This record gives sequence, C-alpha cells and structure tokens, in this order.
Amino acid sequence: MSLVVVGSVALDTVETPKGRADDVLGGAALYFSLAASFFAPVRMVGVVGADFPRATLDELRKRDIDLSGVEEAPGKTFRWTGRYHEDVNVRDTLHLDLGVFAEFRPKLPEAYRDSAYVFLANIDPVLQRRVREAMPGVKLVAGDTMNYWIKDHKAALLEVLKGLDILLINDTEARMLAAKDNLVQAARAVMAMGPSSLIVKHGEYGATLFHKAPANTDGAEKTFRAPALPLEEVVDPTGAGDSFAGGFFGYLASQPDVTPASYRNAMFYGSVMGSFAVERFGTERLQMLSRDEIDARFALFRELTHLD
Amino acid sequence: MSLVVVGSVALDTVETPKGRADDVLGGAALYFSLAASFFAPVRMVGVVGADFPRATLDELRKRDIDLSGVEEAPGKTFRWTGRYHEDVNVRDTLHLDLGVFAEFRPKLPEAYRDSAYVFLANIDPVLQRRVREAMPGVKLVAGDTMNYWIKDHKAALLEVLKGLDILLINDTEARMLAAKDNLVQAARAVMAMGPSSLIVKHGEYGATLFHKAPANTDGAEKTFRAPALPLEEVVDPTGAGDSFAGGFFGYLASQPDVTPASYRNAMFYGSVMGSFAVERFGTERLQMLSRDEIDARFALFRELTHLD
Repeated sequence: MSLVVVGSVALDTVETPKGRADDVLGGAALYFSLAASFFAPVRMVGVVGADFPRATLDELRKRDIDLSGVEEAPGKTFRWTGRYHEDVNVRDTLHLDLGVFAEFRPKLPEAYRDSAYVFLANIDPVLQRRVREAMPGVKLVAGDTMNYWIKDHKAALLEVLKGLDILLINDTEARMLAAKDNLVQAARAVMAMGPSSLIVKHGEYGATLFHKAPANTDGAEKTFRAPALPLEEVVDPTGAGDSFAGGFFGYLASQPDVTPASYRNAMFYGSVMGSFAVERFGTERLQMLSRDEIDARFALFRELTHLD
Repeated sequence: MSLVVVGSVALDTVETPKGRADDVLGGAALYFSLAASFFAPVRMVGVVGADFPRATLDELRKRDIDLSGVEEAPGKTFRWTGRYHEDVNVRDTLHLDLGVFAEFRPKLPEAYRDSAYVFLANIDPVLQRRVREAMPGVKLVAGDTMNYWIKDHKAALLEVLKGLDILLINDTEARMLAAKDNLVQAARAVMAMGPSSLIVKHGEYGATLFHKAPANTDGAEKTFRAPALPLEEVVDPTGAGDSFAGGFFGYLASQPDVTPASYRNAMFYGSVMGSFAVERFGTERLQMLSRDEIDARFALFRELTHLD
C-alpha cells in the first residue's frame, strides 16, 4: 500500500567529528522517503527551489517515489548548516535559510488521496493539520514534531495530536509535551492527547513503543523496546530519526494488517534504517543501500536482543 | 556453585520524590547478595558495626547467605544519606559516615576458598586486588567500580582490571575510564585493560554486554543488549546496579557452563532484579520477593524485546 509523506526537503551542510560535507541531501521528508521506499511506494509532498539538483529528483522517481506533490518553486531550497560536538548527541545550528520552504503550502495531488497511510513529518502543525484533514479516510496517520512547536505552538500541535494514530518523538520532547519526568507517565499523558500509539526515540539506546491500554488491562504488556545498534563510528547523525520513521512506517504500510507482531517488526526495521542513515553524510548511505543489507542488519538486531 | 561477594554493607537514609526512608538496609554487597541469593548460595565478605540489626543478619543467614566473612566490629555501620532529584537519575550525597568501613580489611574465611565465582563490589581497588589474589583458582571474577576510583586511584584500579573477567560499570564510567566518547570504542579500550567481558549499564535504557573479540572475527555479533523495564514509579533507585550485578552473576553461577546463551539470560535476570530493587526503599523489595515473581518478570522482559 502506498504512503504519503509531507515534510521538508533540504540541502544540508554538516560538520561532525568525522568531517564536513557541503550541500548534501537532507530534510525529514527526503530521509523518510528513501528509508520507506525499500518497503512501500512513497508519495511525497514538499517543495524544492530552482537550485535543487534535477538529477536527484530523477533518481527518486526511479525508486518508486512519486514526486507529483513536490513543487518546484523559484527561489532557494531550504538550507540548514549544523555542527555536531565530539558527543554527537549535541549539535548547534550555525545557519538556517528557509528559502522556498518559508511559503510552503502542501498541495495534495488528487491521485494521492487513495493512500491508506500518511506521515506528517516535523513541520508547522497548522500545515500538518491541513494535510490530515484533506485525507479523512486514511487507515493510519503518523507524525513527528519538535521542541519548537511544543514550546511555542502548543495549541496548534494539540489539534494535530487529536488526529494522529502514532506519534514519534524523542525523550526530551515526550517529557516536555507531557510536563512529566517519568517516561511511562509522560507516554500515558501524551497518548491521552490523541495518538493511540507513541514511539519515544532514545538515540543510541533505541526506542520504546507504547500503546494506549484498552480499558480492561493495565497495558504494561503492550510496550516494546527496540535497541539501537552500538555503532563504532557515527559519521553524521542527521536524519536518523526520520530514517527510523521511514523504516517503521514503510514496513507497516507493506503489511496486509496492522498487528502487534507487525508493530514489533516495524520497530526493528526503523532501528535498522536509522543505523544505516548515520554511516555516511546526508542521505548517501540510504541511496546506496540494498535490501540484502537491510535483511542482514535486521538479523543482527535480532541476535543483539533475543535470548535464543 | 557458591559465589563470594566483597563490598559494603550500609544503613542508608534516602529522600526521593516518592518519600523518605531512614536507616534502611543498603550497601553494594547487601543488594548484590540478596539479588544473587535467588540463584546461588552466596558468601559475603564485609563489615558491620554494633548498631547493625542482628535480626537482619539472622534473616540473611536463612536465605543461604553465608555471613562467616562479615565482621561485626565495635563502632558504627557505614551510613549514607542521599537525596534524589525529580529526575531520579540525579542524586546528591548529603552525608557520609564510613564508620567501621573506614578500616575494613576483607578477611576471607578458609571455607570460602573453594568458591568458583567472586564478585568485587565497588570498594577501594587495593582491597579488591587483595581479595582477587587470595583466590587465584576461581573460575570467574567480576567487579564494579566508580568515578572516584577511576579519577583518583587509576593505577590501583588498572591492576584490578588485569585480574577481572567481567567489569560492570555505567556509561559515564566507561567513557571516563577509556577517555573516549563513543561507547563501542570505549568498550574496546576498557576490555584491552583486562576484562574479557564488559557490561555497560544505561540506567533506564538497559545495559549492553560486550565481549572481547576473538582475533579472527570483528566481534560485532557478540554484543547483547538487555532493556530496562519502563517503570511508572521509581521509589528508590539506590542499589539498582548492584541488584543487576547480583541477578546477572548469581544466574551465571547457577549454570553448569558459561555459554553465550547463559550470558544473555544472565543479562535479563540482572535487568529483572534491578527493576524490582527500585520499587521500594532500600532492600525491602528484594527481601519480600518470590521466585515466581522473578520468573513472571523475566517473561515480561522477553515480551518487551522479542519479535515473536
């Protein structure tokens, strides 16, 4: 089943302890689409400027990524410049130029409207909501957000949350959104805002999947933890979370039914795609990845966690 | 097979967001012994003062914990007073009185010397080494340490590490000991100091087991990650790491052979015992625990992590 993603497409300049790369492909929608495209046909909604490499658009189309919802606007593509510290969990934004993304208004092609799965990447919640409302009949809607929207646009974000089935955020965001320090309590509070499932990403420690407990259980048995792969070298952490989301949601969209088992496998595929994304600058590793490599790493994640 | 543990026995006064408890049982050797005693006979080496409740000593003896190596000295038992923050990963030591522990010189009863397993809890590395050297024929030696010894007694600690098979420390300690930010690189550097296996504890995110890679492999397949249980309420985090060590090493000592599978199961039992320890103040939860509860939680950990 095809899946629609709406979000940013960017050209990033990144400095990490492993080096520097200029104008590499980035943006949440691009990482997500590349990761998800290994599992399901992807339909992108976004905007690029006149400076965005046309060869890249051609390459994406060849991967069964539909770009008819990606506007090619006059002006500059969204550009982000950032620097990661020795501890790659910490980064500084050195420069941000929204370019054509500043005026981005998602336009959903008519042909996208039969998609059963929608992913609302981290953008202005007002736009997330607009896309959500334009697709009332979808089977599953997942979304991401960030501290900026939680802090300064909470009312708009809360409206989005009401329409989400699955929210993917990190520890800090979950605690901030719920105003609770304890992760389990924070997860419960966030799910009370709308999403029936919540994935909290723990960076190098993996991710936890929570489900809203049915009324007659304590819900504890519903939780699932996927590890991250202990990596000796992280070249560029950018996009790890979006690649996780792409692997997770792409796998779910590839399955005939959404079951507890498909959720668990999706968590592993998410971790697998996140672990690849950070091995090279920008989206390079995802672009050169093979399905065999994905399967081999999935097996490695199983070995890493399973008793037998 | 019986296992020897040497370390502190304490009376703790603890404040956490959940309340306050005065003079509750504590100390690394006590948490470790209680946790390990569910799996194997334990032989303690330590010291208590005249103020230590005799009824507790009687209770420990009933649990197949041999106290013939625990000296009852005139003076006061080691006392620690601490306060945990809202974020229970952060704590302040408010008061510390070493009491009889200041002059502690481990005395190994003759009857202990046939033990095949020794755990050197977090104490002065000079004492750890002395115990290690007194038991040259043991099958497996594990140990713990802390930032204080890494920072100010590194030479003595390095001598201890040479004699360890397994070291259990947390992320911060691993990175400090190795002077490396990346966890995998830090783990490799620490294992080069002696231990062939290293367990790095990640608090609420679980723990990772690394093994020194045999010369002809890349070693990646040897790593294992056990989760922590997402807990809604942490009453008192004190002793979680020592309880993990007790569950881990107690289980290993209970097995006829040390195999990759027994290591993996031991990691789960460690996580199980750590998850119980924090549910009540001091060692109370471990004292009231049943083997059935341990087995049920082990099953929960499996559900939490396994694909099917």
